[in-house]
Amino acid sequence: MLRFHDPTLGLGLDLGRMGLTDADLNDPALDRAVAEMSALEAGSIANPDEGRQVGHYWLRAPALAPQEAAEAIRASWEALDTLSATLGGRFDTALLVGIGGSALGPMFLADALGVGPGGLALRVLDNTDPDGFDRALAGVDLGRALTLVFSKSGGTQETRNGMLEVAAAYRRAGLSFADHAVALTCAGSALDREAAAAGWLARLPMWDWVGGRTSVTSLVGLLPLALLDQDWRAFLDGAAGMDAATRGREGNPALGLALAWHRAAEGQARRAMVVLPYKDRLVLFSRYLQQLVMESIGKERDLAGRVVHQGLTVYGNKGSTDQHAYIQQLREGPDDCFATFIAVLEDRQGPSLEVSPGATAGDYLLGFLLGTRNALTEAGRRSLTITLDRVGPRQLGALIALFERAVGLYASLVGVNAYHQPGVEAGKKAAGVALRLQAALLAGEAEVVGDDAELIVAHLRANGRWSR
Amino acid sequence: MLRFHDPTLGLGLDLGRMGLTDADLNDPALDRAVAEMSALEAGSIANPDEGRQVGHYWLRAPALAPQEAAEAIRASWEALDTLSATLGGRFDTALLVGIGGSALGPMFLADALGVGPGGLALRVLDNTDPDGFDRALAGVDLGRALTLVFSKSGGTQETRNGMLEVAAAYRRAGLSFADHAVALTCAGSALDREAAAAGWLARLPMWDWVGGRTSVTSLVGLLPLALLDQDWRAFLDGAAGMDAATRGREGNPALGLALAWHRAAEGQARRAMVVLPYKDRLVLFSRYLQQLVMESIGKERDLAGRVVHQGLTVYGNKGSTDQHAYIQQLREGPDDCFATFIAVLEDRQGPSLEVSPGATAGDYLLGFLLGTRNALTEAGRRSLTITLDRVGPRQLGALIALFERAVGLYASLVGVNAYHQPGVEAGKKAAGVALRLQAALLAGEAEVVGDDAELIVAHLRANGRWSR
Repeated sequence: MLRFHDPTLGLGLDLGRMGLTDADLNDPALDRAVAEMSALEAGSIANPDEGRQVGHYWLRAPALAPQEAAEAIRASWEALDTLSATLGGRFDTALLVGIGGSALGPMFLADALGVGPGGLALRVLDNTDPDGFDRALAGVDLGRALTLVFSKSGGTQETRNGMLEVAAAYRRAGLSFADHAVALTCAGSALDREAAAAGWLARLPMWDWVGGRTSVTSLVGLLPLALLDQDWRAFLDGAAGMDAATRGREGNPALGLALAWHRAAEGQARRAMVVLPYKDRLVLFSRYLQQLVMESIGKERDLAGRVVHQGLTVYGNKGSTDQHAYIQQLREGPDDCFATFIAVLEDRQGPSLEVSPGATAGDYLLGFLLGTRNALTEAGRRSLTITLDRVGPRQLGALIALFERAVGLYASLVGVNAYHQPGVEAGKKAAGVALRLQAALLAGEAEVVGDDAELIVAHLRANGRWSR
Repeated sequence: MLRFHDPTLGLGLDLGRMGLTDADLNDPALDRAVAEMSALEAGSIANPDEGRQVGHYWLRAPALAPQEAAEAIRASWEALDTLSATLGGRFDTALLVGIGGSALGPMFLADALGVGPGGLALRVLDNTDPDGFDRALAGVDLGRALTLVFSKSGGTQETRNGMLEVAAAYRRAGLSFADHAVALTCAGSALDREAAAAGWLARLPMWDWVGGRTSVTSLVGLLPLALLDQDWRAFLDGAAGMDAATRGREGNPALGLALAWHRAAEGQARRAMVVLPYKDRLVLFSRYLQQLVMESIGKERDLAGRVVHQGLTVYGNKGSTDQHAYIQQLREGPDDCFATFIAVLEDRQGPSLEVSPGATAGDYLLGFLLGTRNALTEAGRRSLTITLDRVGPRQLGALIALFERAVGLYASLVGVNAYHQPGVEAGKKAAGVALRLQAALLAGEAEVVGDDAELIVAHLRANGRWSR
């Protein structure tokens, strides 16, 4: 369980520097975690607060899913093939409008894999920043741009605002938005109905049994991959292969990973996970993991309703670059984190220059990883190492599936519901309060008192909408 | 000290939600910190381990610098003007080869400000990743590309490898690298001598009294700004203005910021700084701050030599996007961080669409900031808010100078040397050990034993350089 390597998946894991003992490996809590995961895969209501099944493992193994879900998954793959065949060479750019689970996976995959020979360039509009929309649309030929709107409900306000801004840009260019638009949403959602009524190019399915942060092996990830001309079936295969390797009690790398996190966190949130891929292509992986891990584990209450304030902080960018930023603190500062090194074995397509006798730039890259790993070990700091043969769709599928499973197992170890996000709603509701305050201020029905009102008025004034 | 606003700089700071008391504001440690900062600016050896002066404040106020430094700074500005005038329209792209302090500032500024009307596109090679080099060079017309090599000593291996790879690419294209290359380095360094011998286009100065992580107001930041056709003098003016506002004991926003961090950290490293700019252009600010803050504060020993393991962790990306990622944990998880909200008042050039009655996408952006801020306050979590009129060179100069000063003052409060990085050397040395192990393995003089050797051999094999 401390070391794993699967040559078919092109992925290895080494937990030898996480300080685990034999007693750790025999902890009966691990048996419970595996049993709970097994029940989840069999269709239990693993998200009790929302009364939902948790089906992301089915997405790459529909044979294991309940019949209705299995049929829906297979139909979604067919719809993807149909859409791809329809598009032909009509578009050169895809504009993805989505946020959180509808953007982080596609952004990570697109940056890691790049655009294939017949693929579209991908731009992501993942916020409600007006200037950000302008930047994303700058230089895009909208006549050759396909817009993808990803939203389960259609009610996510950032996504709705982005869609409205993009639709207005098509109108200004004298183009029909509907002729360039694809919706990915739950059947019957507000977005689905709107897209049906306006006659969008296509409507594709999301399901309520797939959470946003574990949706990358649904069409949320597969559609962007297909448009990038990357092998989405290999991505699914990689995930399926890792799923198969992470079901049992013995030799399960995800169970080892969850255990290592748990001991590092001392059952609470004692240490953060610093993600250090030594590969430029993987720089967005930490952002992907921030959502997957922190939104799953960061919970006020455990499943029994007790206040526990659980969490597992994730940050990081890439090595060796980050060695010149904060490795100083990782080595000398508080012992409050563990490093997750990721090594990629293949340096590049083709041979490399020797930058010093017998050594390439890639040898230095690995040398810095090993050097930093040893420097941390000498300072008594924990680290683990993941090895990928190369950055391909199969390896990324396996990598993501490894972390999805580890997060689920870890949630069992600390006893929280990994599949809801009750704390997110509060901010959304409070935003509505702020917008109502703005309306009242504009109508002269509220005084400019308090830091919220002051900032609202400063913002209105800066945009020429407050003259008092 | 809890609230600051300077309309000339276009920057405000509000610490009202950091839980500071009157007793905090009267802490005599603040007087000491201001006095130490004053001595630093007057030229004391503020970096005792390395026996160096700390001169980054002089970079924007040479009148306050020792005569030799003042002359060197003014001469560097003249050299920048001369170089800019020389380049004419010869180039369309700048390739910046540098890492850490030589890359994070330029990357942040370039992403935040974009390319001005007559500016060059900027690509940064900030690692020793062979595939990363290939990606950075893809599609670049090297005949129209200017390469900038930033290294104080010329000995930073990542930068040296990048330079060698880029030079080889020019050679393969039948071009003279020297005719396209500018060195920014200390006079007499290995890089300086090499550039002089080969007749590079220009050699520009760095100085040992400016640390990498505080070098962005030297030519490290100014040269990229000039090439981007951004107003580097306004950037300096903004920093100078903030310096003037942060010298005193009263009403000093940097002192307030340092104090707020110190109370949040409870004198140790109790809470992390989560950086949440609600503006797409500022997404790289957290990466810039990671180096500035963590490399400065993350120290094993204090100035008296006692083991303290100080640190101040920084992470974050942008709002409201991150609300869909980890705000769940910030609100419900462990009380181990405080949020640094950044609001930008100007939404975009020109008016905005109403996405709902009376409200623009920018109103929602601010609404989400206010909503999340209130949700955190309700959960008893700390936050502070920085307001920028707009994202311009002056505002960014002021913003960076605010944090530079706050980091220096904070270091006084916790008693560490903010200007060295002893822990970074260990990783570099250990990398040399790894490269020597590789040479021994290749020569058959070492056994493949241990996790280092196994990974080295796997890497060599994946790149066709291990046949046993």
